[in-house]
Amino acid sequence: MKKTQVLIVFTICIVTACNHQKGVVVFQTDYGLKDGAVAAMKGVATGVDPDLKLYDLTHEIPAFNIWEGAYRLQQTAPYWPTGTVFVSVVDPGVGTDRKSVVLKTKTGHYFVTPDNGTLTLIAQSLGIESVREINEELNRRKNSQASYTFHGRDVYAYTGARLAAGVIKFEQVGRELPPAVVTIPYQKAVNQGDSILGNIPILDVQYGNIWTNINDSIFKVLHVEPKEKVEVNINRNGTPVFSQDVEFVHTFGDVPAGKTLAYMNSLMNFSLAINMGNMADSFHINSGAEWNIVVKRKKPN
Amino acid sequence: MKKTQVLIVFTICIVTACNHQKGVVVFQTDYGLKDGAVAAMKGVATGVDPDLKLYDLTHEIPAFNIWEGAYRLQQTAPYWPTGTVFVSVVDPGVGTDRKSVVLKTKTGHYFVTPDNGTLTLIAQSLGIESVREINEELNRRKNSQASYTFHGRDVYAYTGARLAAGVIKFEQVGRELPPAVVTIPYQKAVNQGDSILGNIPILDVQYGNIWTNINDSIFKVLHVEPKEKVEVNINRNGTPVFSQDVEFVHTFGDVPAGKTLAYMNSLMNFSLAINMGNMADSFHINSGAEWNIVVKRKKPN
Amino acid sequence: MKKTQVLIVFTICIVTACNHQKGVVVFQTDYGLKDGAVAAMKGVATGVDPDLKLYDLTHEIPAFNIWEGAYRLQQTAPYWPTGTVFVSVVDPGVGTDRKSVVLKTKTGHYFVTPDNGTLTLIAQSLGIESVREINEELNRRKNSQASYTFHGRDVYAYTGARLAAGVIKFEQVGRELPPAVVTIPYQKAVNQGDSILGNIPILDVQYGNIWTNINDSIFKVLHVEPKEKVEVNINRNGTPVFSQDVEFVHTFGDVPAGKTLAYMNSLMNFSLAINMGNMADSFHINSGAEWNIVVKRKKPN
Repeated sequence: MKKTQVLIVFTICIVTACNHQKGVVVFQTDYGLKDGAVAAMKGVATGVDPDLKLYDLTHEIPAFNIWEGAYRLQQTAPYWPTGTVFVSVVDPGVGTDRKSVVLKTKTGHYFVTPDNGTLTLIAQSLGIESVREINEELNRRKNSQASYTFHGRDVYAYTGARLAAGVIKFEQVGRELPPAVVTIPYQKAVNQGDSILGNIPILDVQYGNIWTNINDSIFKVLHVEPKEKVEVNINRNGTPVFSQDVEFVHTFGDVPAGKTLAYMNSLMNFSLAINMGNMADSFHINSGAEWNIVVKRKKPN
Repeated sequence: MKKTQVLIVFTICIVTACNHQKGVVVFQTDYGLKDGAVAAMKGVATGVDPDLKLYDLTHEIPAFNIWEGAYRLQQTAPYWPTGTVFVSVVDPGVGTDRKSVVLKTKTGHYFVTPDNGTLTLIAQSLGIESVREINEELNRRKNSQASYTFHGRDVYAYTGARLAAGVIKFEQVGRELPPAVVTIPYQKAVNQGDSILGNIPILDVQYGNIWTNINDSIFKVLHVEPKEKVEVNINRNGTPVFSQDVEFVHTFGDVPAGKTLAYMNSLMNFSLAINMGNMADSFHINSGAEWNIVVKRKKPN
Repeated sequence: MKKTQVLIVFTICIVTACNHQKGVVVFQTDYGLKDGAVAAMKGVATGVDPDLKLYDLTHEIPAFNIWEGAYRLQQTAPYWPTGTVFVSVVDPGVGTDRKSVVLKTKTGHYFVTPDNGTLTLIAQSLGIESVREINEELNRRKNSQASYTFHGRDVYAYTGARLAAGVIKFEQVGRELPPAVVTIPYQKAVNQGDSILGNIPILDVQYGNIWTNINDSIFKVLHVEPKEKVEVNINRNGTPVFSQDVEFVHTFGDVPAGKTLAYMNSLMNFSLAINMGNMADSFHINSGAEWNIVVKRKKPN
C-alpha cells in the first residue's frame, strides 16, 4: 500500500531525528578542579552540541606529568565503548612546536591531545589505526586566535566535541601523519629465566598499592600458585629499597590485616599491597621510569 | 477509521522509542578521583546504555570507612527520585565471603553494594522492601572472571547500570534474601528526661560543623526556644572533650562571627558550629561510634 | 490531501515531544566534594526534570570566599551557551536578610545566587538585563520550610532546575528588582601614563601563575612587543613583595625552564609565571583586594 509506505518513511525519519548519534567525550587534564578551566572546556563542548555526554577521567594528573597521563588513558580507555572520544591535555610544551593530533586506535577509540608522549601506552595497547594532525585553521574555536595558552579549551575540547557530535569526520581533523606517536622510553617487563624484571609505572594512589607492568601472561612463566611465596626486590635507579618474601594470593582478605601480599590487580598486572594498609607510604616506594622490580619464585621448602 | 488506528499505534511506538526509560545511576566509592577507577566504572555503564544519566555522590569516602559510606547514602538518597540506582563501593572485604546485594527500599530506591554495613542507615530510614543477592554468574561483565579485585567495575557498576537501563529487572538480580542487611552498631538518640544522649555520626567536613543524630522530633522534648541556651557536653569513649553553654538559633548569622552556636542542620538534626569558623578543628572534635553528646536545656535565670 | 496533513501534524507533535528543550545547569559552591551536599542538589534538580544536563563549575571555592566565587563565574560563564543556568552558592550570610536573586545578563545567561557580591564581576562583564528576587513562597522545594540552612538545595538548585527545564519562566522567579547587584570594591586596572596599576584578583592555583585584571586593550597602551621586558612591581597593602624585570612572551616555552615570564592568559589578561615552576609559591604572592601590581615598559637599552 502506498500510504503504508509513506507512513514507514515518516516513521524512520522521526526515529532517526529522535535517536540521533549522541557522542561521548571523556576529559583528562592536569588542571585540577579548583578553578574554571575544566568547566570552560565543557562549556565549549556543550556549545558544539548540548546532547553530548561529557565525562571526566581525572583532572588530578600531577602538573606536567605526561607519563601519568599516558598511564591513566591506558588504564581506563578499554572500558569505554567504541567511538568514545578522549580529550587529554597535559601540555608542558604548550605554544612550542609539539603537534596537536587525533589518534584513532584499532579499537575505534579517539584520542585528542598534544603528541608529547601522552599516547605512549595507549598506542601500544590498543594499536594505531591512523594519526591526523589537527588543522588549527579549521578546527579552532572562533575568535580564539589571540589566546596563546588555552589550547585545551580552544583546540582540544572544541575538536573533540565536534568529532564526537559528528560535526566533523575523522578525515576532517587535518592531514594524515605516519602511523606513529611520540613515545616515552621505559623498562618493559622481561622474563629472565627464573625471575622477571619489570617497572613500577604507577601507584594505586588512593590505597598506596604498588602496581607493576608485569602482566599475567609473563608472570605465568614463573608457575606461582596461589598461597605460594615470591621473592620481591624493588630498587630505585639500582639502589635497593624493598626486599621481602611475599605471599601471592587471590585477594586482600586472604592475608591478615597489616600483612604484605602480592596479587594480580584489576588490569591483570602483578601488584603488591598491605591488607588494610598503605604499602607505598610504609616502605617509601614511588613510581616512574627509575623504579624497577625483580620478582622471583620462592622454591617450596 | 482503520487508518487513524494504524496512525495512533505508530505514534505510540515512536514516542516510546524516543522517550524510552532513561535511568539514573549515582556512584559512591572510596577510590578518590586521582586515577581511572571511577572513569572505568562509568565507561562500563556507558557501554551498557549510553543514555544513562551518571552522577557522583562522592568518591572521597576515607579508605575502608564503611560507616561514612553508610552515612552519605542516608544523607543524600532521599533527595533523588524514585527509581534512582545507587552503586556504593566501600569494600575492605573484597574477595572474602561478604555478599553482593541489591537493596530495594520501600521508597523505590535501589542500592547496589557489598552487604558489609553500608546499608545500616538507609535500611532504617527508607525501609527494606526487598534484598536480592547478585548472581555473579549472570550479572558480571563479560571476560572479567580472571580479575579478583575490581568488583566495583565488573559487578557493581555493571549490575547497577543494567538495572537502571532496564536491561534486567530487579527480580533478575539474583535470589531473594531475607529482608535484612548487615548492620553496624551505634548509639541511637535517647531522651533521658531533662537531657538527650546521642552520637556524632559525622562532621560537616567542609566547614568543621558538628552533626549529631538527635533529630528534631526528639529535640523538641526539651522545649528549647530559639535564642535560649543549651548545655552541651561531648565526650570520646567517656572522656570529656567539650563542655559549654551554647545559644540555639535559627541560622549562623544570628550570632557574631567566631561564636559557637547550636542549630538544626539541613537534615533536621541537632548540630553545633562556629559562625565563620571551624568548630571541629577549634575543639579537636571528630566523629564516629566513640563520640557521644549530651544536650540539656539551660533553665532561664 | 487531508491524510497527508494529519500525518504532518502528527509528525510535528512527535518530534516536539522527543526533542523538548533540554536545559543546562552549572553548579558552583564552597561545599567541597567530600560529603553529599552537591549530590543532594543534583538529586533535587533531577527530580525536577531527569533530562536536565547537570555540570559543575567548581565546588572548591574556599569556604565563605565570595570574591573567588565571583571570579570563577566571570572566568567561565562566557564559554557556555546562551540560556545556561548557573547556580552559585557561596553564602556566609545564609539565613540573614541578603536577597536571593536570579540575574539575567544581556548575553542571555542566568545566575541563581544569594546577592552578596557573587555577581560583582559577571554583572560588569556580561551586563545586567534584569534582576529578579526569588519568591521563596513559590520557588522552594516542597516541605523544606522547616530547614533554615540548606538554601543551596531547597531554593537555589530547585529554582535553577525549574528555570532551566522550562517549568517556570524567568518572569515567574519573583518580582523584578532595580537592575543592580551587590558589589565588592576592588582596584580596577588604570593607565598611569608610562605604567599600569592593577589588581591580582586570582591565582591560577594549579600551577601557581599570577593573573592580573590588566586586559590586553589596556596593556596595549604600553606598546610592549613580544620578547621585550617589562618592569613588574607587586605589593600587598603597599608593602613591596616582588620587583623584577620580566620578559613578555607569547607562551611558556619561549623562556627556559625555571625562568619568570609575562604573558597574556587565556582570558587575555596580563599574567606572570615561571616556566615549569610555581611562581606564587616561589615569591609568596597571593591574590585578593589587597594585592596590587604596577607594570612598566622597560626602555630598550
